Amino acid sequence: MTIANATSLTWHWLEELANCSETQEPNSEGVTRFCATPEHRRALSMLSSYMYDSGMDVRKDNAGNLIGRYTCANPKAKTLIFGSHQDTVPNGGKYDGALGITLPIALVHYFNRHRLDLPFNIDVIAFSDEEGTRFQSTLFGSKAVAGRPNIALLDHTDSNGITLQQALGEMGCKPEDIEKCAYNPETVIGFVETHIEQGPVLDNEDLSVAVVTGITGLERHVITISGETHKLNSPNLDSKQDALVGAAQVISILNSICKHDFELKGVVGKISNFPNGVNVIPQRTEITIELRCSDDEKRQQTSQRLFSEINQAMEELNLSIHSELLYEQKAVTCSPQLSDKMAAAIESHDLPVRKLFSDAGHDALTMSHLTDIAMLFVRCKDGITHHPKESITTADIRVALEVLERFVLNLASE
Amino acid sequence: MTIANATSLTWHWLEELANCSETQEPNSEGVTRFCATPEHRRALSMLSSYMYDSGMDVRKDNAGNLIGRYTCANPKAKTLIFGSHQDTVPNGGKYDGALGITLPIALVHYFNRHRLDLPFNIDVIAFSDEEGTRFQSTLFGSKAVAGRPNIALLDHTDSNGITLQQALGEMGCKPEDIEKCAYNPETVIGFVETHIEQGPVLDNEDLSVAVVTGITGLERHVITISGETHKLNSPNLDSKQDALVGAAQVISILNSICKHDFELKGVVGKISNFPNGVNVIPQRTEITIELRCSDDEKRQQTSQRLFSEINQAMEELNLSIHSELLYEQKAVTCSPQLSDKMAAAIESHDLPVRKLFSDAGHDALTMSHLTDIAMLFVRCKDGITHHPKESITTADIRVALEVLERFVLNLASE
Repeated sequence: MTIANATSLTWHWLEELANCSETQEPNSEGVTRFCATPEHRRALSMLSSYMYDSGMDVRKDNAGNLIGRYTCANPKAKTLIFGSHQDTVPNGGKYDGALGITLPIALVHYFNRHRLDLPFNIDVIAFSDEEGTRFQSTLFGSKAVAGRPNIALLDHTDSNGITLQQALGEMGCKPEDIEKCAYNPETVIGFVETHIEQGPVLDNEDLSVAVVTGITGLERHVITISGETHKLNSPNLDSKQDALVGAAQVISILNSICKHDFELKGVVGKISNFPNGVNVIPQRTEITIELRCSDDEKRQQTSQRLFSEINQAMEELNLSIHSELLYEQKAVTCSPQLSDKMAAAIESHDLPVRKLFSDAGHDALTMSHLTDIAMLFVRCKDGITHHPKESITTADIRVALEVLERFVLNLASE
Repeated sequence: MTIANATSLTWHWLEELANCSETQEPNSEGVTRFCATPEHRRALSMLSSYMYDSGMDVRKDNAGNLIGRYTCANPKAKTLIFGSHQDTVPNGGKYDGALGITLPIALVHYFNRHRLDLPFNIDVIAFSDEEGTRFQSTLFGSKAVAGRPNIALLDHTDSNGITLQQALGEMGCKPEDIEKCAYNPETVIGFVETHIEQGPVLDNEDLSVAVVTGITGLERHVITISGETHKLNSPNLDSKQDALVGAAQVISILNSICKHDFELKGVVGKISNFPNGVNVIPQRTEITIELRCSDDEKRQQTSQRLFSEINQAMEELNLSIHSELLYEQKAVTCSPQLSDKMAAAIESHDLPVRKLFSDAGHDALTMSHLTDIAMLFVRCKDGITHHPKESITTADIRVALEVLERFVLNLASE
């Protein structure tokens, strides 16, 4: 077996996994796979067979994560963890998350065929929930593994009123024993996540891979705006009571704060409006806000300014507002030691070492609380991600496999 | 039987009818009853028993309208039509529409008990679809009766992709024969709609009823705003491509045009956003616009200005926009002859004659194409309508019944 074979295997698995989706046509409609759904279960079933065929022991933990272990002969050996998330955004791409699971399994497959005995275990984890669309959670899976489970999220409900706890229970997990998901930090060497870039830098510079230096800080809020009554036909109609007019103001405020500052990324991605009738003044509108920045202090200052402007605008509109911080994550620096080793592995293949900061959050961010982290970015076409058009090449997969092979072998020979 | 008994009957029927709802608790969650749904079918079943018990012949037409006839002995006699719509907005009230059906049935019940032989037939119609929430239609039922069926609406789909044609077929209608719904104008005396005011004037002035002088003109649009791509994590993120930011602009433009002009009523009531993920830049957002004005020319000028400002704003945001006029209705003047008779009936009970213009559209508006129309407004508490808190009193129902009894008897004695 060659790295070329491992490349084909990764590609084949990515295509197969894309069919575990709520959508009928992943090529045109993209992939929709949320946490603890039938699609999640089908994906774990496929991934477990890939892991098993690659010589790994397979288990599912109480947070819905799937974990394959390529076991070292030494029972006291530590573990190097690879992994990424199995879930997608609505109508997302085939590679965001999935690449960071299938690619290291294929690498293990290659090691196993060559009967390579490493001085450490290799674990590959398919984290259950990173995007967090269904339960307005985020990084639920990796938090449990890192020993910082977000137990409050278990009571979050999806749009049908099903809690995360129920949904996990239905797939055979025991979320009440979520603490058991945690790794002992003393048994872990580090965590390595392979992920598409989610930006066009590598594509613009015609490079296959980059080493990630750090990951953005981010905060996520859900905001509910409410009006008093909603009588479109009233002669004394007071548009101040239109909750959707308030939501429009919030969207405009966020946009005007972020649009001229390239360090800040802010979006209202999700909106729901009640009662949502064509001739009824909206009474209650719920929106989410996600704010990202590499500089934690700047993000916190921006957030304060944002909510101060929002509160003032809602007061002027005579609307009431309730906001909840769903999630906050400080920016994280990747381990210089592991990242230097990743850079060396790239150099050993005569490739230039490009270093990038990640504007997106990743499971590695949470895993940094458990152990040293490193990330390898892989080029994606035009930087388009979270979209059916998300696209990568087999040539870049091959480069990533060669780099990770060298990275692992260098670690093993230390 | 007395008018007091007819009042109790009306009240009882309104309470019973409110249970034909998607909601479990009409008192707290309001009534949700859309066209051609199981709730519509249950409502028609109840109404048909009320009509039958009141001495009427009952039939359902091909547009889903239910029609009860209190038949005159003279086979060549003309017909006086009463009626209103059975459907509600999402989480609407118990009285909007329902009052204009149950109250005239109770009046006929009273006539029938007294074996009153009138020189004309009385029809009471429960129109299938006025609010138009499910199929983004409006006044579908009364248009068919007025001989101006909107056949294009039959292909409109609800959120599950079911067409109005299919839904009507499932309730036993033959929408392909919708022309048969039309009344012959020569057989009709007029149309009288009883409706809650949908405004606070009567409540503020402590009056039970008012005569309506005319009905607002209105237009309804659906607007789709689309961005090119949506990559939140891209270093060259261009927020100009956020469709929801565009929708927020449209909402603000409409609000700023209408908020200082009491003659104009405008609302974006409905919004849907795609893909609606918390961390995904919205790619496509669809909103509705409803614009109302008593002055048709002013409405049309406002509409032109509105779309000119919207198009300019979308161009500046680099967003594409598609808009469709779903519906347009010119303002209508009620019949002076019938309205004068209504005023006389009010005066005969020693009550002041209050005249009001209707800022809301009504089935009477469409029926004006078939025949003379008159409308009687009934006070509703605080002017709150389209809301679970919609509230009326038995005392006002009684006044309305007394006025309509006098109105019919005066017509009969001419």
